[in-house]
Amino acid sequence: MSVNSPWLAKGEAKRQSILDTIPAKWRLPNPVPPATEVRDVTGSYIQQYLSEREIEITESDAVDIAAQTTTGRWTAVEVTEAFCHRAALAHQLVSCLHEIFFDAAIEDAKKLDAYFAEHKAPIGPLHGLPVSLKDQFHVKGVETTMGYVGWIGTFQGAKDDPRFRIEESELVRELRNLGAVLYCKTSVPATLMAGETVNHIIGYTWNPKNRLLSCGGSSGGEGALIALRGSPAGFGTDIGGSVRIPAGYNFLYGLRPSSGRMPYQGVANSMDGQNTILSVIGPLAPTARSLALLFKTVLSQQPWYHDPLVLELPWRDALVEETRSWIEQAKAGNSTLAFGMMHWDGITRIQPPIARGLKIVEQTLKRLGHKVITWNPPSHATAGTLSSEAFNMDGGADLKHHFGLSGESKAVQVIVDESNPISISELAALNVAKREYQKQYMDYWNSTAELTGTGRPVDGLFCPLAPHAAVIPTQFNYVGYTSFVNILDYTSVALPVTFADKSIDVRAADASVAELADHIEWTFWLMRGTDDADTYHGAPIGVQLVGRRLQEEKMLTLAEYLGGEISKTVETK
Amino acid sequence: MSVNSPWLAKGEAKRQSILDTIPAKWRLPNPVPPATEVRDVTGSYIQQYLSEREIEITESDAVDIAAQTTTGRWTAVEVTEAFCHRAALAHQLVSCLHEIFFDAAIEDAKKLDAYFAEHKAPIGPLHGLPVSLKDQFHVKGVETTMGYVGWIGTFQGAKDDPRFRIEESELVRELRNLGAVLYCKTSVPATLMAGETVNHIIGYTWNPKNRLLSCGGSSGGEGALIALRGSPAGFGTDIGGSVRIPAGYNFLYGLRPSSGRMPYQGVANSMDGQNTILSVIGPLAPTARSLALLFKTVLSQQPWYHDPLVLELPWRDALVEETRSWIEQAKAGNSTLAFGMMHWDGITRIQPPIARGLKIVEQTLKRLGHKVITWNPPSHATAGTLSSEAFNMDGGADLKHHFGLSGESKAVQVIVDESNPISISELAALNVAKREYQKQYMDYWNSTAELTGTGRPVDGLFCPLAPHAAVIPTQFNYVGYTSFVNILDYTSVALPVTFADKSIDVRAADASVAELADHIEWTFWLMRGTDDADTYHGAPIGVQLVGRRLQEEKMLTLAEYLGGEISKTVETK
Repeated sequence: MSVNSPWLAKGEAKRQSILDTIPAKWRLPNPVPPATEVRDVTGSYIQQYLSEREIEITESDAVDIAAQTTTGRWTAVEVTEAFCHRAALAHQLVSCLHEIFFDAAIEDAKKLDAYFAEHKAPIGPLHGLPVSLKDQFHVKGVETTMGYVGWIGTFQGAKDDPRFRIEESELVRELRNLGAVLYCKTSVPATLMAGETVNHIIGYTWNPKNRLLSCGGSSGGEGALIALRGSPAGFGTDIGGSVRIPAGYNFLYGLRPSSGRMPYQGVANSMDGQNTILSVIGPLAPTARSLALLFKTVLSQQPWYHDPLVLELPWRDALVEETRSWIEQAKAGNSTLAFGMMHWDGITRIQPPIARGLKIVEQTLKRLGHKVITWNPPSHATAGTLSSEAFNMDGGADLKHHFGLSGESKAVQVIVDESNPISISELAALNVAKREYQKQYMDYWNSTAELTGTGRPVDGLFCPLAPHAAVIPTQFNYVGYTSFVNILDYTSVALPVTFADKSIDVRAADASVAELADHIEWTFWLMRGTDDADTYHGAPIGVQLVGRRLQEEKMLTLAEYLGGEISKTVETK
Repeated sequence: MSVNSPWLAKGEAKRQSILDTIPAKWRLPNPVPPATEVRDVTGSYIQQYLSEREIEITESDAVDIAAQTTTGRWTAVEVTEAFCHRAALAHQLVSCLHEIFFDAAIEDAKKLDAYFAEHKAPIGPLHGLPVSLKDQFHVKGVETTMGYVGWIGTFQGAKDDPRFRIEESELVRELRNLGAVLYCKTSVPATLMAGETVNHIIGYTWNPKNRLLSCGGSSGGEGALIALRGSPAGFGTDIGGSVRIPAGYNFLYGLRPSSGRMPYQGVANSMDGQNTILSVIGPLAPTARSLALLFKTVLSQQPWYHDPLVLELPWRDALVEETRSWIEQAKAGNSTLAFGMMHWDGITRIQPPIARGLKIVEQTLKRLGHKVITWNPPSHATAGTLSSEAFNMDGGADLKHHFGLSGESKAVQVIVDESNPISISELAALNVAKREYQKQYMDYWNSTAELTGTGRPVDGLFCPLAPHAAVIPTQFNYVGYTSFVNILDYTSVALPVTFADKSIDVRAADASVAELADHIEWTFWLMRGTDDADTYHGAPIGVQLVGRRLQEEKMLTLAEYLGGEISKTVETK
């Protein structure tokens, strides 16, 4: 990797060109202090560069913003400018953007304001709401690199393709119909197959709450940008955890819907045509209701008429109402809600902050009178093997091709290796094994009806998103906590719980042997030395709430309710 | 293929064992006359062996039968015995059964009658209704050969597998819950990849309306058995037309639902794990409302809790009601229904009987005031190439394995050949090409909104099921008329129209040049000589009504309405 490598220069030029699009007025006046001095650049740190009005706007959630912009109380231009400013700051702090198109966004916002002035009504339910996009979505006027140097100046690596800077993804078209304002695209690891965000264009995207750590991946730029409130909500994609991991690492909510709900039509991807595990699109935001707003409004666009893989399944209010009725019953002291709790997956032990996060969840559920079942599922090792075989089925041919366009090297964090592709008969056997595993898991889920006492199986499963909180660079190497959900094609919502705390998340002096054996990798944690407890200090701790397939309405409703209750548990501690 | 081949003897022994399960009282007293003497063994021919009461029962449709059996007016035993008798006759006439388990069926029927006597209520909405099954479904107590000699005495070719004669497919379990009586499994071509039904066990399944012709395939035994009213309704499977072709060849209705509605869990299959084009389960019956009864009641069993590939999409009465409101509007003289009409696919010209069938449909639509649009879709040649690549992706490895178990030979009708399997990267490219074709077709479908004048795109597309009516043996060699639907994953209902008539379906003496060019292969037809017009005489002519993906409720409602209207058009001629 000599300084003379053409791909290195090309990546650096692109990095500089991204910075150059930031207006001078929004450039940081001073260099950013090192992470060892200032870990956390969220909250008051970033606020120092913003006006009170900008803070008011950018720290409102998507639902509140839309309530203002769709009624004309806030103009689209003011809101857009505030988020453009804050996104510009966020990028300078943690390197989270691949594409910046603030000018086009402000032009679009002006048109929205003109529309409102003329019609005294919004163009759609997202009128004037800025929405960020992972750099897989094609937006007219800007390019998509997906972190590959070889994609710079091309359409998905193809030179002279007429779609270059012309094509728009179906979701982008729908967001425009809804009135959303598009203004930036966020960083990803090249290949998308990594739990950290690193590439030869933007370098490394850091965690805003603790810049010693990763923002997660592959929708890592989304996670970091939204954590800094440089975006009220955005869309990522998830084939093994790529929405949920950055959501969890950034104290956000993130939805991994089942395949067939959000339109992937016209979106760049890795290993396109691999259909054993389909990548899905899902929103990330600081509140669960923001996820629901984006998900529901996109469905209102009837994407099944425009994407052949989308199911004709409109937003189902009946599922929301049913779930709310159970919540009301619980509030009246008669809970019929039941949850599985998986403290670890039998393969990779979790670290103390995550164990504590799960305990907070469990305490919350019990306080609310919900039944908690210890999860004893079919082998998660099987799920891990199936995922790995699926991700590696082409022997790395796709990533080899795309890295080869520029000659750049693969980051160590990428979980796909170059190997021999499997055969068609082996793939068929893999697909059968996957279906059989899904059936086993389904039967296990059904069997919990005998344990809940509610007449129904569990309503959801709580489990870790990873063995650790937002991870130390290069140390993300176990995706099994999220990828089993992709094998099952289940619905999952990442939920924020609390933050790692070096004064709590250590082995207690009086830890009993029983506690040591309590499925928590204290020894692993201690072996790594106290430096890690210190390094992780302040890292967001998230968990996931997993539901059956195609249960997005139910799981979003439960996530909003339980996320609120979990935060109450944390506050009262 | 010497007489000494062990597989030949094994197939013959199985053939004889099937015949041996027919009680002596139900054996034909005389040899069946050759087809050259008696072509049509439906109607009065088979009736000669039945009592008036048996004819009354077996010539009622599934809806009428269920109305009797769920109210106790007819006993399950009487109904079951009548269908067992008629199925036994059907098999002796056209060789359509692989498995006969009348004794178990009558025992089950007795239990149903006892249940009704005790509870004064049916066990479910199909209480006492006999339902036939293609020989891919596993039923306790009997084997599944799927036409392979090498599967005799095994579980899907595996010796000493504990599931042998124990396993039941999920659909079978659900049918039992609903009160259906299972009594026989019907013939298929080994491999399932053929439009005729031939194997080394039952030989060749003939078309009951014209025993010079094929019953179609691969759900050919279902088609033949139901044509003879040896079953009121049954389930087949369709990966390229295997429900619709035998439905069309036997003057029946047949549904090819989109994938993800009917449970395929625990059903034997070819190339299991090939997931580019999923085989789907669909019902066949003499009336459209019978299809709806089976489809709707299976959904009432919530198969999505028992099959991980089934979508949580209950029967949608709202779609039925919406469709009925359009039908009522049309009856009041204000039709907003519009249909595409594809007379041929641009690749394989159709024969005169099929052209006449389509003309009858078109006349019917116009008489009813519905808009008719000439269909001008994306290339069907592309769909054909995609299907062929998908069906042949493993280079015939699966069929080679299963034929190899016994050493038997492949029938000439099988459309999969031994070749080199494709690579994983080629498969990914195929999946992308398929998705892009689906998108093109979807956009074309949407674009018809500009032509209908109704504000909606067409409500359905009428097109041939094959270039010909029920086919001359070994002459089925073009599956493109049905397989494009599988590429698109659209809903399609096969509808009966009329019968080939040698006095009509010939080139008129005064045929103009324009008529010759009318997309109808008159010259091809004439070149084959008048013998074919004679051979085809009496062959059923069906068409298909294709709807968008997951539109089963709408398309079944339209099929019932239009099927009835088409028969009125035929009657008034």
